[in-house]
Amino acid sequence: MVDILHRIAVEGRTTDDVYQALATIDGLADWWTEDTTGGTGTGEEIAFRFPQGGFDMKVLESEPGRRVLWEVVGGTPEWIGTRIHWDLRQEEDWAVVLFKHEGWAEPIEFMHHCSTKWASFLLSLKALVEDGKGAPAPRDVRVDNWG
Amino acid sequence: MVDILHRIAVEGRTTDDVYQALATIDGLADWWTEDTTGGTGTGEEIAFRFPQGGFDMKVLESEPGRRVLWEVVGGTPEWIGTRIHWDLRQEEDWAVVLFKHEGWAEPIEFMHHCSTKWASFLLSLKALVEDGKGAPAPRDVRVDNWG
Repeated sequence: MVDILHRIAVEGRTTDDVYQALATIDGLADWWTEDTTGGTGTGEEIAFRFPQGGFDMKVLESEPGRRVLWEVVGGTPEWIGTRIHWDLRQEEDWAVVLFKHEGWAEPIEFMHHCSTKWASFLLSLKALVEDGKGAPAPRDVRVDNWG
Repeated sequence: MVDILHRIAVEGRTTDDVYQALATIDGLADWWTEDTTGGTGTGEEIAFRFPQGGFDMKVLESEPGRRVLWEVVGGTPEWIGTRIHWDLRQEEDWAVVLFKHEGWAEPIEFMHHCSTKWASFLLSLKALVEDGKGAPAPRDVRVDNWG
């Protein structure tokens, strides 16, 4: 099993501010994909849709200002059963976000792509919480010929 | 051992164009760090310096338009002995870059940070080769409170 790891920090904001962008439909739609629907409570499912497809995430944990954990229950076969961890911590004026997309079976080329896309979406999340301006799909940053 | 993986593709350019940005001092200085010196031939060492420190890379392989491989021989202890792979492939109008920073001992928090920083520098490389405008240190994109 292999994982995608990232770290961002949001300046001048709190982990509660970041949590709002991870645990509400409107927040998620403002940095990941505009077509986000469903429920963000523990045990509920969130449907993320992109021009090329989408993912359904089951919310396994959601603790305000601390953490969110999703399991992928629908979408691209390579993602099914993987888990996405969001761990939040305040360091003085910075809200630190530790990200892990855990449980890929193999380090396939699609995983390389997703790692770079996750980084660009995390920078979209940072821009949203700092300045109110994310870049969710379909207005997202293109990283390669796959999207 | 754990690895950082990324994938970008440069539109309207060839793998030879990308290779120039990976295998010349001027090219490297235009997307990673302005303070880049040394030699880029096989067996030579490149010194990359940043405001906070730096890395020395030994060039293990350098094949025009195909691949570059470095081994970290100086710098942050967590990086020493790790290897950085650049594999290039043309897909129609796109020059695809598969990146791997291989051989981290543990998935420490610093590795999360470096994964996101690598993504932002890879997008700097893409912008350089597509449009002539990279964002090397010290003009690089800040991802968190570490840089």
